[in-house]
Amino acid sequence: MSRQTGRGTETKKVSAELFTLTYGALVAQLIKDYESDEEVNKQLDKMGYNIGVRLIEDFLARSSVGRCHDFRETADVIAKVGFKMFLGITPTVANWSPAGDEFSLVLDNNPLKEFVELPDGHQNLNYSNLLSGVLRGALEMVQMEVDVTFLQDALKGDNTTEIRLKFIRRLEDALPAGEE
Amino acid sequence: MSRQTGRGTETKKVSAELFTLTYGALVAQLIKDYESDEEVNKQLDKMGYNIGVRLIEDFLARSSVGRCHDFRETADVIAKVGFKMFLGITPTVANWSPAGDEFSLVLDNNPLKEFVELPDGHQNLNYSNLLSGVLRGALEMVQMEVDVTFLQDALKGDNTTEIRLKFIRRLEDALPAGEE
Repeated sequence: MSRQTGRGTETKKVSAELFTLTYGALVAQLIKDYESDEEVNKQLDKMGYNIGVRLIEDFLARSSVGRCHDFRETADVIAKVGFKMFLGITPTVANWSPAGDEFSLVLDNNPLKEFVELPDGHQNLNYSNLLSGVLRGALEMVQMEVDVTFLQDALKGDNTTEIRLKFIRRLEDALPAGEE
Repeated sequence: MSRQTGRGTETKKVSAELFTLTYGALVAQLIKDYESDEEVNKQLDKMGYNIGVRLIEDFLARSSVGRCHDFRETADVIAKVGFKMFLGITPTVANWSPAGDEFSLVLDNNPLKEFVELPDGHQNLNYSNLLSGVLRGALEMVQMEVDVTFLQDALKGDNTTEIRLKFIRRLEDALPAGEE
């Protein structure tokens, strides 16, 4: 895991506040551009996917994480290594399905939502939906197809932010063709 | 100045790569939305201004910097405290005008431009123009009106990235009305 010295091969860092405000500008621009919250969610997911496809390389290079043996191990690595490395937080892994193919990441602190208030009339906006795309893209690059959805969102008045990951299937051989 | 422990009152951090890729998604969206590079530059500057107006509060709260006595001191604080705190880099202050009212920030490493290649036909795009706006907005909040321009941009094949700051005037009393 990275120590935050900001030197050499360590992960370089920027201030979370600068990131959060820049992300806010992106979401505000998309709200201007698209007619519905659903379309904004879709664009954020697509952007996140493309980012996830890039970040996974950095993640594998910097962490000493090898192939995960099961979805439980994957969940722990995402929460304790991935989120820590990229967002500086460690969500709780919770609410496993009996079959072990679904779990939740519970974020007590979501850096993306700092200083944010959803404007009126955007109850269907998943403000932090970039994260869904990042998770989907990054996991696809390690041959896992997952479905990612926001179950709870503190921005909408829920008690916490809960991202649900559902394992769909293991992808074989060829790298994914990727999305635009 | 902040130590990067990510705890308590210290500045929280996220990975520079995540920030850079998210910023890239923002610029790509603006290029889709606006007809000319000049208009994209203007939008980035405006977004940066709004971010700078917010970041200065954080900056003043976290740094122990007081009022600067002259523009030379301002230059040093921007480079050594501001850029360090928010972007994790320390630009060189250079090329002072004889009158002492203009200087350059020379960035050997511009985190915003990592992994970026300008698409063809965008020679007038100031890709990192958000930074101009941030500087303009933040300085306006401490009663300094400055003009900020990109003199050189490594993304356009220049040797380095050089941001020029020109002192215009000291603003009196009332807080600026702010821009949209």
